[in-house]
Amino acid sequence: MEIDGDADEGRRKIDWAREHTPILARIRERYTEEKPLDGVVIGMAMHVEAKTAVLAELLAEGGAEVGITGCNPLSTHDDVSAALDAVDGVHSYARHGVDRDGYYEALDAVIEHEPDVTVDDGGDLIFRIHEEYPELLDGIAGGCEETTTGVHRLRAMDDDDALRYPVFAVNDTPMKRQFDNVHGTGESSLSSIAMTTNLLFAGKTVVVGGYGHCGRGVAKKADGLGADVTVAEVDPRRALEAHMEGYDVAPMNEAVEDADFIITTTGNRDVVTREAFESMNDGVVLANAGHFDVEINLEQLSEYAVAERDVRDGIREYETPDGRRVNVLAEGRLVNLATPVSLGHPAEVMDQSFGVQALCVERVLDADLAEGVHEVPDGIDRRVAEIKLDALGVEIDELTDEQRDYISSWQHGT
Amino acid sequence: MEIDGDADEGRRKIDWAREHTPILARIRERYTEEKPLDGVVIGMAMHVEAKTAVLAELLAEGGAEVGITGCNPLSTHDDVSAALDAVDGVHSYARHGVDRDGYYEALDAVIEHEPDVTVDDGGDLIFRIHEEYPELLDGIAGGCEETTTGVHRLRAMDDDDALRYPVFAVNDTPMKRQFDNVHGTGESSLSSIAMTTNLLFAGKTVVVGGYGHCGRGVAKKADGLGADVTVAEVDPRRALEAHMEGYDVAPMNEAVEDADFIITTTGNRDVVTREAFESMNDGVVLANAGHFDVEINLEQLSEYAVAERDVRDGIREYETPDGRRVNVLAEGRLVNLATPVSLGHPAEVMDQSFGVQALCVERVLDADLAEGVHEVPDGIDRRVAEIKLDALGVEIDELTDEQRDYISSWQHGT
Amino acid sequence: MEIDGDADEGRRKIDWAREHTPILARIRERYTEEKPLDGVVIGMAMHVEAKTAVLAELLAEGGAEVGITGCNPLSTHDDVSAALDAVDGVHSYARHGVDRDGYYEALDAVIEHEPDVTVDDGGDLIFRIHEEYPELLDGIAGGCEETTTGVHRLRAMDDDDALRYPVFAVNDTPMKRQFDNVHGTGESSLSSIAMTTNLLFAGKTVVVGGYGHCGRGVAKKADGLGADVTVAEVDPRRALEAHMEGYDVAPMNEAVEDADFIITTTGNRDVVTREAFESMNDGVVLANAGHFDVEINLEQLSEYAVAERDVRDGIREYETPDGRRVNVLAEGRLVNLATPVSLGHPAEVMDQSFGVQALCVERVLDADLAEGVHEVPDGIDRRVAEIKLDALGVEIDELTDEQRDYISSWQHGT
Amino acid sequence: MEIDGDADEGRRKIDWAREHTPILARIRERYTEEKPLDGVVIGMAMHVEAKTAVLAELLAEGGAEVGITGCNPLSTHDDVSAALDAVDGVHSYARHGVDRDGYYEALDAVIEHEPDVTVDDGGDLIFRIHEEYPELLDGIAGGCEETTTGVHRLRAMDDDDALRYPVFAVNDTPMKRQFDNVHGTGESSLSSIAMTTNLLFAGKTVVVGGYGHCGRGVAKKADGLGADVTVAEVDPRRALEAHMEGYDVAPMNEAVEDADFIITTTGNRDVVTREAFESMNDGVVLANAGHFDVEINLEQLSEYAVAERDVRDGIREYETPDGRRVNVLAEGRLVNLATPVSLGHPAEVMDQSFGVQALCVERVLDADLAEGVHEVPDGIDRRVAEIKLDALGVEIDELTDEQRDYISSWQHGT
Repeated sequence: MEIDGDADEGRRKIDWAREHTPILARIRERYTEEKPLDGVVIGMAMHVEAKTAVLAELLAEGGAEVGITGCNPLSTHDDVSAALDAVDGVHSYARHGVDRDGYYEALDAVIEHEPDVTVDDGGDLIFRIHEEYPELLDGIAGGCEETTTGVHRLRAMDDDDALRYPVFAVNDTPMKRQFDNVHGTGESSLSSIAMTTNLLFAGKTVVVGGYGHCGRGVAKKADGLGADVTVAEVDPRRALEAHMEGYDVAPMNEAVEDADFIITTTGNRDVVTREAFESMNDGVVLANAGHFDVEINLEQLSEYAVAERDVRDGIREYETPDGRRVNVLAEGRLVNLATPVSLGHPAEVMDQSFGVQALCVERVLDADLAEGVHEVPDGIDRRVAEIKLDALGVEIDELTDEQRDYISSWQHGT
Repeated sequence: MEIDGDADEGRRKIDWAREHTPILARIRERYTEEKPLDGVVIGMAMHVEAKTAVLAELLAEGGAEVGITGCNPLSTHDDVSAALDAVDGVHSYARHGVDRDGYYEALDAVIEHEPDVTVDDGGDLIFRIHEEYPELLDGIAGGCEETTTGVHRLRAMDDDDALRYPVFAVNDTPMKRQFDNVHGTGESSLSSIAMTTNLLFAGKTVVVGGYGHCGRGVAKKADGLGADVTVAEVDPRRALEAHMEGYDVAPMNEAVEDADFIITTTGNRDVVTREAFESMNDGVVLANAGHFDVEINLEQLSEYAVAERDVRDGIREYETPDGRRVNVLAEGRLVNLATPVSLGHPAEVMDQSFGVQALCVERVLDADLAEGVHEVPDGIDRRVAEIKLDALGVEIDELTDEQRDYISSWQHGT
Repeated sequence: MEIDGDADEGRRKIDWAREHTPILARIRERYTEEKPLDGVVIGMAMHVEAKTAVLAELLAEGGAEVGITGCNPLSTHDDVSAALDAVDGVHSYARHGVDRDGYYEALDAVIEHEPDVTVDDGGDLIFRIHEEYPELLDGIAGGCEETTTGVHRLRAMDDDDALRYPVFAVNDTPMKRQFDNVHGTGESSLSSIAMTTNLLFAGKTVVVGGYGHCGRGVAKKADGLGADVTVAEVDPRRALEAHMEGYDVAPMNEAVEDADFIITTTGNRDVVTREAFESMNDGVVLANAGHFDVEINLEQLSEYAVAERDVRDGIREYETPDGRRVNVLAEGRLVNLATPVSLGHPAEVMDQSFGVQALCVERVLDADLAEGVHEVPDGIDRRVAEIKLDALGVEIDELTDEQRDYISSWQHGT
Repeated sequence: MEIDGDADEGRRKIDWAREHTPILARIRERYTEEKPLDGVVIGMAMHVEAKTAVLAELLAEGGAEVGITGCNPLSTHDDVSAALDAVDGVHSYARHGVDRDGYYEALDAVIEHEPDVTVDDGGDLIFRIHEEYPELLDGIAGGCEETTTGVHRLRAMDDDDALRYPVFAVNDTPMKRQFDNVHGTGESSLSSIAMTTNLLFAGKTVVVGGYGHCGRGVAKKADGLGADVTVAEVDPRRALEAHMEGYDVAPMNEAVEDADFIITTTGNRDVVTREAFESMNDGVVLANAGHFDVEINLEQLSEYAVAERDVRDGIREYETPDGRRVNVLAEGRLVNLATPVSLGHPAEVMDQSFGVQALCVERVLDADLAEGVHEVPDGIDRRVAEIKLDALGVEIDELTDEQRDYISSWQHGT
């Protein structure tokens, strides 16, 4: 079944992403020369868009045979899928808007390549193999999982002794969290909000729910644009850290009273609820930068509102009983992914986690790992940082032997 | 002739802009009550999109009869025009994509209302009246002009003693330049670049051409997002100011060697030319945030390049003889207006200059001004600032008599 | 033997510190009312200056009998010591400039109070008791140790099973490191440098050696003053974090070539050595903000230099063979402590670690802890953050039961 | 009469300043070679401390015979004066702590050199010559005046046609105000406050009175250290600019309620008065960064307070009737000059205005200027910027002829 997408257009998108993923470019140099994945079959189920395509293509350039499909029927770009399918060594089965049957048929098509390694975003490929193709399990060297959700499901499976091959939890590495969350989420959330609302941040009061990695990124960059930032937190030390940066700190229900923008980043539910809706300013804009759409309680808002309507693409306005207007972006879903203009994470951020993916694929083939979920070895994470610095042309210092002795004598006792 | 636009959709867009233009909202309160423009006819030729519509509607709410059309055939939003035409007291003749004849017919339709005051963006209405309707000139109290270009043309006309009524140069007021340029251009340029390229600013080298108001805004906000900023300037004191902010300062042709992004804001031509193209990094992104598309010399780039193609919506890639790729956004036109996702200036910024417009319309009716171009009285500009602070609920201090004496004794001698 | 200090002057200094230590003030309210330390004898050996005095006085206000002396013969302020000795329930034996015998006599005088709890800065009191007063060990409930060095020595003792009572390692708590290092070291180092050199940071190139907590503080605040920051690091991920903040990153020996200021914060030795001295700019200023004076290798500098002299209070100039001048502040010792104008850590920072001290004293009395070095319980550290927020009048959110369930289901599996 | 100062110590101080005044160093290269002031006699009355000494010495290095004395009996550093007197071609008559007679004797001694040019800080030399030595007036080519106060007095004299030779108002140049005020006052005020109080700025609420050049510098740098800034202003546009930077804006009497630090920079009197004292927090710190000590009304504070005392060097505490403590630094005088640890303006800032001084001395000799106060020619100011960039090794762009035409056609009409 053919993919109904403009492969030339897809190729252009992939090329753009290739141009701005320096870590993958550096790994490509080695892969092209050494072909470390020669003869390896890799099955992938990920969001098939340009950045992912660069990873799939890279694995093929390393010698692998790659079968790939989507991990969500709505996230596939058909043009990219078509372009990818045209690449030597890559077979793409991803199509936008397939139904449930079509989705699983595509997964099965990938599995029929009999992968040595699986690369997942959400775990659907791993689960399908465990459920429907148990006979293949022994032949699989291992897998990689990209997301929080997938890792969570795999850990539960592991707890039940049901996970039958080793899987790296790529999601949890420092190279992903420290950069993806702070810089990727921070910048792309603010740009998406700006380009959806046509509003300024300068001079505005921006309330940030949560002061973890994402919240720090959003707060710091909103501050950098000229906003006056208020942080709402539940942890006293994080709250104090925010205070020491010069931000206001207040409980959410008080903070919203002055807010022009409210951006949630907690990873928790019910961060903005009925009591908050009751005291917001007219015209306030709400957006969520956390993983799930549970942070702003839209059910309560809808119940509280006397009217609601779409006022702009990606903006739903709720009118309160006393005539104020509360504007919610992207139905409370991830604002850097879900507005009409959003583009998801910037290429450089995916470059870092896909760099980890590529090295983990190699490691899972070489190492003799036990079944179950494994943390990404720190050395791999560190190696990706080194590759990026090298690609950027940034050099750093090395400890001398004397320095290493000095430090370790301090850490471990004289 | 009817406007072929969805008036409901246009209404929604206007409502959104109304909600985020606090100065106009505050003026509206007075207009609605006092009707200061009762019986006045106002002719307008401006970009007919949501923010302008709020101004037109406001003037009508103040009692005026408003005839409006576009100042550029491509900038009209038909849905907004249709919604505007449905407003009591407003007649809109603007339609998207009209030909030259259609454009002038619409101007003529506005003029047939026999305006007491004209409000222009580029001066086409004023010029048309002077050329084709000289008999109306005596009846016109005055006009307002929004842009640099329009003011420039009117000054030339004034020098030739050809301008037959007083016109306020709204473009040049502090309330426009200090905010529009620094914050409006600064933020919307960066957001437009981010949402067109899907790239990060954090860790990138951003070269800013020019350190005037626009350049300061772009530099400061790029810095606030985590970029490493280099400024290229021709004025030694501005260059020194940039240096004292901690930015690198270098001639453009050297600065480009390390650049990830190059953003021009000079108002001058040929800021980035052949010599610069020859030493840029592979993958560099070029954008212009200055008024005209003359800052990046695309003719030279096209000549130098061995190939060129569109790689993404709004991005044209030029391949150099040695295989590097130079990416130009929006054909070198104003990046916050001309990419597919750009929305132009944020609403709050237009609120400030439209607030000046509204007060200037009143002033031109009351004051007995000589023919020619007039600077906006400082008191009006200052008044708009006061209205905005009031609308924001921000209070400030007032000088006591003793303080006023103390200061003035210092300034004017004892 | 009387202390030869002006107790009134000392009282004023203590009062100033009391006024700016809100955590201790809040604990004082409870202590004054509840007297939780009634009947407890506390022995202290710390730097006897105003901030420490507030802690000693607080413990007495909580009902304790306090004996205190210095932990370094040169750090005692006699006026503070005299003022402290005049406080009900406090006996101070600290005198500035005592010889070795005088130092140990004072320690012995403290020990003669037969303390239930010891509070040390460097461990001298604990060591003295273990060596000379073993008969007291059984009666001691426990101790607290403030510094890295002291904890290090105690861990070594613990490894040899020689530590005979429980001691809290106050040094290592988040409330100390995240604030003391980032904000305390960051601000006080820069102020001390500014007030010793009479130079600006704006427009200067500041090279920061190390990007741990101290380095981040120095870098961020130098950047905030307008400096252009370069970071030298050995860890690739930290280097990449610095890069993503927009700082330059380079090896120390290259970074120094453009430096106006070089500030070391690594905790390691030989961060700036001969090769670096050879390529520094004429007039460069070097300062150390790390714990020991080993980061700038002054022996090598002295050997390399053809002449050296003191050019200002706290600044030693070394002339290189080719006529450049290299200026070293405070002989390479902690610049926020060791220049003539330095005041050590700001009061608010000591407030946080002394707040932890006070709560640890209570805990060590209540809990039945095993012999050895103990980490400060996270609850105590968190409690100090809560007290500070409360003292600042800053309120934060609390997790609801639903939120707690939601989060924990995510962390621990469904 | 000999100066009782350690000339070696003075020499060291001057050398330090020479090392950090790159503009004067660059001018020195030309002076040493070309001796443009050969045979010229220059009389100076300025603060005789290290930075001024570099200027005096420079003029001598350019060939001039220099007679110098103080412009305030308390600001002379005797060691610097002694070192200066030992310089070839320089005669220093400045001594610390002289009485009125001694002060005027020293001025007379300078005048007895029969200067061709006078360089003043406050105008005392000019006034003395006009009053007591009118016979010399015809022989004087002109003068330079450094300060606001001096220029003010000279303008008044000029208005009365009493000023008999041309004087450059060095105080008013962009190279002085844009840098001295923003960066010099900004940084040195904050450092002086930090090193006088031993307090942190991070997390503190800093109220800045006035948002002119000084206020912007203080606000921006306090923000850069982690403070939460509130601005009090009387001008609505400046207030709005502060708002757009993300600062809080409020009237002084409200702003003080949350303040930890209050810093005045207005140049006006009575910025902080009785009503404000009544609502300040306990422990608040007040400092003035404006020219005169009239901004904080200490008379009112003293009257309101029930007790007052010096709590630390440079800090006076006032106790309010309700038991709060209000701390005033340096008796409300310029905080970067008047605390015990203050060092005045950083060397680089004086370098800029002394660079202007040196070029103005040359100009006043060459140009045939009318009697009266003259603005410094823009070309000189610009030239100093060029020299500094050159000294820093910073290159900038130059307009091409085409660019010059393009710009000027825009500015002056087609």
